Amino acid sequence: MAKRVTGPEIEKLIQLLAKVPGLGPRSARRAALHLVKKKDQLLGPLADAMGEAHRKVRICSCCGNVDTSDPCTVCTDVRRDHAVIIVVEDVSDLWALERAGAMNAAYHVLGGTLSPLDGVGPDDLNIRGLVDRVVKGGVRELIIAVNATVEGQTTAHYITDQLSGLEVKITRLAHGVPVGGELDYLDEGTLTAALRARTAI
Amino acid sequence: MAKRVTGPEIEKLIQLLAKVPGLGPRSARRAALHLVKKKDQLLGPLADAMGEAHRKVRICSCCGNVDTSDPCTVCTDVRRDHAVIIVVEDVSDLWALERAGAMNAAYHVLGGTLSPLDGVGPDDLNIRGLVDRVVKGGVRELIIAVNATVEGQTTAHYITDQLSGLEVKITRLAHGVPVGGELDYLDEGTLTAALRARTAI
Repeated sequence: MAKRVTGPEIEKLIQLLAKVPGLGPRSARRAALHLVKKKDQLLGPLADAMGEAHRKVRICSCCGNVDTSDPCTVCTDVRRDHAVIIVVEDVSDLWALERAGAMNAAYHVLGGTLSPLDGVGPDDLNIRGLVDRVVKGGVRELIIAVNATVEGQTTAHYITDQLSGLEVKITRLAHGVPVGGELDYLDEGTLTAALRARTAI
Repeated sequence: MAKRVTGPEIEKLIQLLAKVPGLGPRSARRAALHLVKKKDQLLGPLADAMGEAHRKVRICSCCGNVDTSDPCTVCTDVRRDHAVIIVVEDVSDLWALERAGAMNAAYHVLGGTLSPLDGVGPDDLNIRGLVDRVVKGGVRELIIAVNATVEGQTTAHYITDQLSGLEVKITRLAHGVPVGGELDYLDEGTLTAALRARTAI
């Protein structure tokens, strides 16, 4: 903006909103205006919710989930089968798998994948904590649900290596055709994997 | 989410973020996670900025702009020509025109357009305040910069009517081809207007 048309407090709000993923400089301005217009219905409550989250948010010392309590909601949920641990790269993957609601298991968030080029080694990830959980006993199965990328697969292999000798079943997500996906748009690797793992109808 | 995977404070933050324009339920979750991960760099400052904006934001009693002071930054800017008032529908239009930076004028925000079908009459808009500003004197020109919609044009006519007899020049934005626009994609009305208002090269 060439000249200032509003107070510094609102300009600052716009600048910070522009850093939120999903909002750019232009939509941050639109969002700020909307918030300011609905100041009592939305801006106030959102400010309070953010302050509350800022004060209370913790990283779970057991699984790495983001929560306001430590251990987190998932780790303390007695209705879950804590003998099965789903290993994910990021908290967003944990949330995505929970949305699917297919498993009733515990989780372990690695916080990334091994990537020597980016300088991410085993000590930068929460792998030690995972090994400790398995060593402590009571874990029957580890489902390694990392992304199907080179870094993800490298990380999966490294974890499998670290756990060799321990009595735990290690599995990975199936490769195949996405539900609702069209064959024409899929890569050869996926099609090959889907053919190899074909099932009887 | 089928089962709770995080604390109620974070769930509440996601719900409120989903109401921000530009964010939906899915991107609100992504945004919340990003905020929580950058809690000291982004979440805390944003909470403070929102709280500050919530406490301080005012609608300018003179022009209707959103600001933290009343009269607002624009109305108190001595470097502007306050004899020229640009009449806009919404604060976002004021901000958009200021980004263009073509004029150094004052503004008047109507807060909408006349729309009998939606029950919006003259008393619901800030038209009385505009007439008062002109009656008080010192206004040379009123540039009616409402949207080129039926409601916008109706509002423009109504305002012109209300000001008949007062000594003020009333103008409107030019119609024509948008800069960078392709003729092929323009409607007939715009092309006709652009042809009629053609200028010598």
